[in-house]
Amino acid sequence: MDLNNALTRWTELLGFERVCGGDAVRDRYARSTHPGGTRPAAVVFPANREEVQEVVRIAHANRVPLYPISRGNNWGYGDACAVSDGQVIVDLRRMNRIMEVDSELAYAVIEPGVTQQQLYEYLRDRDLPLWLDVTGAGPDASIVGNTLERGFGHSPAGDHYHASAGYEVVLADGSLLATGFGHYENAQAAHLFKPGIGPSLDGLFTQSNFGIVTRMGVWLNRRPEYLEAFGLKAEREEDIVDIVNALRELRLAGTVQSTVHIANDLRALSARSRYPWDAMQGKSPLTSAMREELRKTHGMGAWNVLGGIYGTRATVHGARTEIRKALRHLGRVHFFDESMLRRAENLTRFAGRHGLFSRTCELVTLIRPAFDLLKGIPRREHLFGAGWRAKDAPADPTLDPLNNRWGFMWLSPILPMSGGHALNLIERVEPIYAAFGFETLLTMTTITARALCSVLTVAYDKEDPEEGQRALQCYDALWKTCMDAGYVPYRCGIRSMNKLDAGSQHYWDAVRNLKVALDPQGIIAPGRYLPRSNSTILESNEQRMDRTFDAYCHHALPVAPAKDRPVRPAKSNLELCST
Amino acid sequence: MDLNNALTRWTELLGFERVCGGDAVRDRYARSTHPGGTRPAAVVFPANREEVQEVVRIAHANRVPLYPISRGNNWGYGDACAVSDGQVIVDLRRMNRIMEVDSELAYAVIEPGVTQQQLYEYLRDRDLPLWLDVTGAGPDASIVGNTLERGFGHSPAGDHYHASAGYEVVLADGSLLATGFGHYENAQAAHLFKPGIGPSLDGLFTQSNFGIVTRMGVWLNRRPEYLEAFGLKAEREEDIVDIVNALRELRLAGTVQSTVHIANDLRALSARSRYPWDAMQGKSPLTSAMREELRKTHGMGAWNVLGGIYGTRATVHGARTEIRKALRHLGRVHFFDESMLRRAENLTRFAGRHGLFSRTCELVTLIRPAFDLLKGIPRREHLFGAGWRAKDAPADPTLDPLNNRWGFMWLSPILPMSGGHALNLIERVEPIYAAFGFETLLTMTTITARALCSVLTVAYDKEDPEEGQRALQCYDALWKTCMDAGYVPYRCGIRSMNKLDAGSQHYWDAVRNLKVALDPQGIIAPGRYLPRSNSTILESNEQRMDRTFDAYCHHALPVAPAKDRPVRPAKSNLELCST
Repeated sequence: MDLNNALTRWTELLGFERVCGGDAVRDRYARSTHPGGTRPAAVVFPANREEVQEVVRIAHANRVPLYPISRGNNWGYGDACAVSDGQVIVDLRRMNRIMEVDSELAYAVIEPGVTQQQLYEYLRDRDLPLWLDVTGAGPDASIVGNTLERGFGHSPAGDHYHASAGYEVVLADGSLLATGFGHYENAQAAHLFKPGIGPSLDGLFTQSNFGIVTRMGVWLNRRPEYLEAFGLKAEREEDIVDIVNALRELRLAGTVQSTVHIANDLRALSARSRYPWDAMQGKSPLTSAMREELRKTHGMGAWNVLGGIYGTRATVHGARTEIRKALRHLGRVHFFDESMLRRAENLTRFAGRHGLFSRTCELVTLIRPAFDLLKGIPRREHLFGAGWRAKDAPADPTLDPLNNRWGFMWLSPILPMSGGHALNLIERVEPIYAAFGFETLLTMTTITARALCSVLTVAYDKEDPEEGQRALQCYDALWKTCMDAGYVPYRCGIRSMNKLDAGSQHYWDAVRNLKVALDPQGIIAPGRYLPRSNSTILESNEQRMDRTFDAYCHHALPVAPAKDRPVRPAKSNLELCST
Repeated sequence: MDLNNALTRWTELLGFERVCGGDAVRDRYARSTHPGGTRPAAVVFPANREEVQEVVRIAHANRVPLYPISRGNNWGYGDACAVSDGQVIVDLRRMNRIMEVDSELAYAVIEPGVTQQQLYEYLRDRDLPLWLDVTGAGPDASIVGNTLERGFGHSPAGDHYHASAGYEVVLADGSLLATGFGHYENAQAAHLFKPGIGPSLDGLFTQSNFGIVTRMGVWLNRRPEYLEAFGLKAEREEDIVDIVNALRELRLAGTVQSTVHIANDLRALSARSRYPWDAMQGKSPLTSAMREELRKTHGMGAWNVLGGIYGTRATVHGARTEIRKALRHLGRVHFFDESMLRRAENLTRFAGRHGLFSRTCELVTLIRPAFDLLKGIPRREHLFGAGWRAKDAPADPTLDPLNNRWGFMWLSPILPMSGGHALNLIERVEPIYAAFGFETLLTMTTITARALCSVLTVAYDKEDPEEGQRALQCYDALWKTCMDAGYVPYRCGIRSMNKLDAGSQHYWDAVRNLKVALDPQGIIAPGRYLPRSNSTILESNEQRMDRTFDAYCHHALPVAPAKDRPVRPAKSNLELCST
């Protein structure tokens, strides 16, 4: 490995200000919502695919491991961090072109740096009849990044992997590969028909380290004639059984065509308030009595269901009838649309000025971000829940978890969409949360008609190292109970990738063979979604790099270890890089 | 290569009657709907995955190429034939176990030998609230085989690749690989959540030669409370523009959730009658005047649209309103359900006895198989169209195309779901059909909301060698015009696989690297969906095998070349094998 030479070559290629090896930048990228991130050897910022190709060729020639990120907002799963120390982050934020938007066929072709907000504004400003599907990761999150993690949103296009087609990938030798039909010149359906012809390769480039995706087609929703949301509060924990079974049947029948979100009381609470440190006199975890009280105060159900019905007035009307019929035994099913919400907002604006109906006002304020999510409008508010255990108000108004030093980890097991499995999961995880002194913050989303994705949040106080260690133990125990029950996560954080070989070792050997076929030297993202390192050469490289980096790197300055130093005020990475 | 040794070892493993190298069997498997099939070296019939593993290990040790088929009903794309002569067919028809049917979660786990009829009867006999999605390939076609070809049907689960999860695959070294979550012991969602965790591998084992799939999960439709079909006849060729655009919007809006089938006049005609040899005085192709006359006689539209609306009475009612609104300017939209169809059948049974309303009677008889298809009931009738150019009545009542010596080839380009593209395709292919003296038999199916799959049938008289050669030329010209226009097929026949490298050569090099990673000796299905042979070793093996097979094979008997000898009466392959 010759990192020094690679850095020199990259600097020639990209310019001094796009190759950052200084401690300030390396520290910044080492930050994590986890109790300890990994520290990169450097960060490079290519601006187009040709530069990515050349960056990779240089890495290949010098045997330096690269870790591509789209925008690094992989919250709760490792953020912008590589799996191990000493990799070079390839930050693709400068590649933020919207290459194409097709209004008729409802898709866009975008680069990895394109954020949810950017595409949303593009569609809005041109008044195109298209809505994107957004996640709760905030306006600055990358669409491509989320898709490559196979994330999900809340609309009919909510299964992002399924709703993407035609990837352009830079392989480890610097060559370009177009999946689907994209490698046929002039193919008309390159971004419309996912599998193409012959073996379908899209899947290889998601949750993997097989290449760097530099462009992809993402499917958008046709802006519906009419959108109505439905909401339900169910009072008893065991109601989850009926909720899940009813939603499965609604999805199997095609009555509900989008993901539906179910939050438990605490997770719903975390979206609007903080752990009650004062009322709890600084103690944690939350007592049952306090949980009960908070639930009442904020008008929460044990389960809080929200989904959208997209269509025309006629089809939504038909679906509404069925949804009410399926859920009404669990509580009152509320239906609301944009005009109702606007009326309520006007009313509460008036009432708020006169100090009236404060609880209704609070409710309306909270419903707006959720409804906007259904409409494909990214909102920062959804990140607020990540700071549940924080003791101070957010320091950074963008609600960036890293700038606010919010500690949390996400674990997201997949269950069969069956009430019994949902209850089983809850009964398994509640005692573990309690044993480690944390609150069960839990959602369940109907990711397909047959699979339920639960997102378990372990939220902890980032200022308290003991609590951080406990959070890790809690996470590991949750991981174990999920795996023991056969609820394998759909995605995992960088800390958990080495645990994946609980599956058949032979399986991972086959995956490794495929990796070696495309990246024989293991240049791209070693350790990522491969339970053991795929190249012994690289392992020793990393060790060597850790020892020798500071001596080599022309940007390096001697500073204290990165892990828990005070955070600077928010600045863009590029600003930092050029300082 | 040592075929002799492999045959000996297979015979020890499977028994004499499951290893067929006799000419009768080899000839039988060499038959094709194409003007010339390929001739296998032998056919073996393993009965379970352990036997498949051992068959593969023996092939590997002896460097003999294997060509797996599920049931060999790959009509119009190569039938049971390998890409080249001299491969050993691994016929999986004995592996026909339905391992699991889950009524709650609406899926089944099946082996490759399970037919559409078999699973249909399984569900029907137990009165399970599940419908399968069926294709028009007939009751005897394999479900797994179609899914691995990424075929499609007519219901909400009509995209078979998307609606399958958790494959069990035997790799070239005889080892087992489980995709998705399947390699985690006790995984609960192994057949419910397609991608699993880490790089998703399902796509690699479809339209490929990377392994032999021995089991998979297939998603079933929840039997709907209510199914209504909608039909439309549009009179003018250019109406296709509005039809496609309207269907796209109905699908994007979620109003229609299943594939919709559009047949042109001739393709619809072929489903009920034969080329009018008498009226045309033995000449072909069909004149415009005769086409016009037939269209009128049979009450055909230029375009004949059929789709299903699945749901409850309330949701179907909503959808019906929208469908009528979207299509009514093109003609009268007919809606019908099971009870209407039954009433009509009773009425026509009465009328038929008295020789009344013969055209209505004919219509009702024709609608039943189409409606059954929407309900997941496999029907033989759909195969009838394949014999359009045949001069005799079907010799074989099962309508097996091979037993009837029906000549046809299918070409299935994918277009953007846009009326302009649909019309463009038609304008390109019509003159080619005419130039080569064939009729344009064409369907278009809304395979997803954004992609239209056209199936172009080149039907020819299998008894006429000149016509067969002309059919090949016609097919090649159609292929070229589709590729020139950027309409790449979603699937192709064994004759066309060598044409796929019109795409980037680099792309196919990458695919070849992946193939070599899993099958370094190229044992499995050489040439299949890889435009050039993936192993030079094997190429020469095949040549060698062709020369030396008869000397080696202990089953071989000297007979005339296979290609166009008279066909024996229908017998199962196994019967033949043991003779």
